[in-house]
Amino acid sequence: MQQTKILLDEHEIPTHWYNVVADMPNPPSAPLGPDGQPISPAMMQAIFPDNIIEQEMSAQRWIEIPAEVRQALTMWRPAPLFRAHRLEAALGTPAKIFYKYEGVSPAGSHKLNSAVAQAYYNREAGIRRLTTETGAGQWGSSLALAGQMFGIDIRIYMVNVSYQQKPFRRSMMQTWGAEVLASPTHLTEFGRKILAEDPNSPGSLGIAISEAVEEAASRADTKYSLGSVLNHVLLHQTVIGLEAKKQLEKIGEYPDMVFAPCGGGSNFGGLAFPFLADNAAGKKVRLVAVEPTSCPSLTRGHYAYDFGDSAGMTPLTLQYTLGHDFMPPSIHAGGLRYHGASALVSQLYHEKLIEAVAVPQVATFDAGVQFARAEGIIPAPESCHAIRAVLDEALRCKASGEPKTLLFNLSGHGHFDMAAYDKYFAGKLEDYDYPQEAIEAALERLPKVK
Amino acid sequence: MQQTKILLDEHEIPTHWYNVVADMPNPPSAPLGPDGQPISPAMMQAIFPDNIIEQEMSAQRWIEIPAEVRQALTMWRPAPLFRAHRLEAALGTPAKIFYKYEGVSPAGSHKLNSAVAQAYYNREAGIRRLTTETGAGQWGSSLALAGQMFGIDIRIYMVNVSYQQKPFRRSMMQTWGAEVLASPTHLTEFGRKILAEDPNSPGSLGIAISEAVEEAASRADTKYSLGSVLNHVLLHQTVIGLEAKKQLEKIGEYPDMVFAPCGGGSNFGGLAFPFLADNAAGKKVRLVAVEPTSCPSLTRGHYAYDFGDSAGMTPLTLQYTLGHDFMPPSIHAGGLRYHGASALVSQLYHEKLIEAVAVPQVATFDAGVQFARAEGIIPAPESCHAIRAVLDEALRCKASGEPKTLLFNLSGHGHFDMAAYDKYFAGKLEDYDYPQEAIEAALERLPKVK
Repeated sequence: MQQTKILLDEHEIPTHWYNVVADMPNPPSAPLGPDGQPISPAMMQAIFPDNIIEQEMSAQRWIEIPAEVRQALTMWRPAPLFRAHRLEAALGTPAKIFYKYEGVSPAGSHKLNSAVAQAYYNREAGIRRLTTETGAGQWGSSLALAGQMFGIDIRIYMVNVSYQQKPFRRSMMQTWGAEVLASPTHLTEFGRKILAEDPNSPGSLGIAISEAVEEAASRADTKYSLGSVLNHVLLHQTVIGLEAKKQLEKIGEYPDMVFAPCGGGSNFGGLAFPFLADNAAGKKVRLVAVEPTSCPSLTRGHYAYDFGDSAGMTPLTLQYTLGHDFMPPSIHAGGLRYHGASALVSQLYHEKLIEAVAVPQVATFDAGVQFARAEGIIPAPESCHAIRAVLDEALRCKASGEPKTLLFNLSGHGHFDMAAYDKYFAGKLEDYDYPQEAIEAALERLPKVK
Repeated sequence: MQQTKILLDEHEIPTHWYNVVADMPNPPSAPLGPDGQPISPAMMQAIFPDNIIEQEMSAQRWIEIPAEVRQALTMWRPAPLFRAHRLEAALGTPAKIFYKYEGVSPAGSHKLNSAVAQAYYNREAGIRRLTTETGAGQWGSSLALAGQMFGIDIRIYMVNVSYQQKPFRRSMMQTWGAEVLASPTHLTEFGRKILAEDPNSPGSLGIAISEAVEEAASRADTKYSLGSVLNHVLLHQTVIGLEAKKQLEKIGEYPDMVFAPCGGGSNFGGLAFPFLADNAAGKKVRLVAVEPTSCPSLTRGHYAYDFGDSAGMTPLTLQYTLGHDFMPPSIHAGGLRYHGASALVSQLYHEKLIEAVAVPQVATFDAGVQFARAEGIIPAPESCHAIRAVLDEALRCKASGEPKTLLFNLSGHGHFDMAAYDKYFAGKLEDYDYPQEAIEAALERLPKVK
């Protein structure tokens, strides 16, 4: 029999997270406050507990995973690594294709890796209530379950249009005991302002972040939790890449190229950063972030200081951005509809230590369906982006005869995204391009920082 | 760390299926034709290939799993066995609770175990086209994927009401390349008859079976495939129990009681039959089939010869039945809405080698939500039936102080059943009882067999 899955035992769950900051050639850029000065930890205490802030600022290479978090991870980890024998045969490629499958988490994606860690640290800090936002619902689902596991009440501001379009993601969060609100709401000043302008506002991730942050900042009993972008979130996701390396090692393989979808950056950072450590030690693995052509922050954005949310309530970070007021088209990969990118991913890209490629929506579903028919698993729209890039590379290998080893992050299943597949089969999915004028116009509106 | 999952490697996937017929104290009752005489293999050749018929009739204890089927099973097997530490703690029970999780299959349930075997045997017999029926969609999804894997075209007659209510199950089948029709259709004589009486017929599993059988019987290039009830289907599912035994053995455990949902019987037979072999060899494990109070074929039905479908097109089998014209209430456990039960399960129940219990709908969702909040995984409504019975037993253990070891089949996830959870939270789920008069009236309408 051909081996399909490379498994690890629970005692092989990583004992430490890997912090890429320790291996970056230059120190990470500092986040800035509204005055253009580096922010202090004290400025973050309104919304985050001290243990999280400490982790966010850390430059320590290895950070121990608390025993209770490792125990929580046993609920679904280690995640299997698959060899895509059937897909390779269908393509007729000499490339070897491997994928790490994070859809085995009960919440359906990699997001739960950071959710359990954040819930743990908040509980340790005495916090009993968290707010957060969610778009497509992957992050909200994950924090709902993690809150249930660690005894923390969770309130989720869910982008109104998603709340209406994806009622079953909402049902899932409620099953795990979380409170879910359609954002904008009348509960926050910012929500009321938006609703006064447009009582039927569809909402946006930016608005939902602003509401969740505003509530956390104004209540002593409540903190805020974010599902991507920040250093500590990317840190928690490195269990993905650390496990994948161990799994490949067991069968004597090492990738030539690593691919992952890239929105805020935790999906990509989680798989890729541990391989970047190898490059720092002399290896030469190519690390490719895959983003939508409709939201091309890395491939076409400006490298500049910008806000993390649309309302301008967060600190400024140096990032690739399309402008914090950018409204991404309604592609189905909701997890990639973000105007900017993590400061760490942005800096690594700027310093040419990683690569990026943008792919159009319809081609990602072509790839997702081809994958599902060969490998069985129906991928989330975000994951379809990585698959598209891998198929393109595998077909290049077919043309050139190169037997490259390719690895990608199958970050989640598409069980709550079947409406998107329906539209694809009905020929109703669109590709969006982002006009050059809009990119240039955004530059004008970026916050001015000396 | 406490061990949560007991895993097996791919080479530990069973090499043989276990045929319970070999260990039954009495030979299985023979299926009868319309003339009341035992049917011959020749009578089944209109709809099944010879290799499947041979398996259906076999009394051989161990039947080798073909290498290509084992290879196909590596797509998701071995399935993990979980120890429900968090659920035990939440209940405060001294019982040890284990569950075999079949929701790891890409189709989301145990049904794929038989689908790949049936697709393989049909392809070996030169068949390139299969018809089948599906209610909730678990079986249709599984055969759609298996057909894609073995190069067989699949046409699925999906019960009309489910086709309308569960559009995403349909999308899933289409993603794997199957053709899905809302039954009744105008394509079959039986479908046209039903539509002439009621153009808006919601359909039923009985009608859909009749349409699929009629088409297969009338086309030389097409055979028929069934997802439960028949001996060969239950045989294919025994990989569940065989793996579970091996997993428990690895940690030195053995169950006092085994629970599984029971509709047609493949869910229950798959987990329980391999333990029945141990009872035949002197062990005393209690095997409990769990059914809905709204469709109580084992606990309240008649042990009599009856048809497998509503239209009376199938052979007659000796089974526990509520009458083949019984229309089960619209509970959300669509996989358990069946008037009868497998002949093997029925005979074992009649001979008191297994037990059965019926549980009401709302209580199954109480149990499912409690399970999801402790263990993370959101269970399918069918699986919630087993969970209800396990919780009841675990609470009895709490009262008595007995540290029993309980095992159940978590046969699938509930990702396509969230509408049912919504109704539960909205207080809109109903319990149905089955009136005694109706049970007695059904006896009058059973086919007369000497």
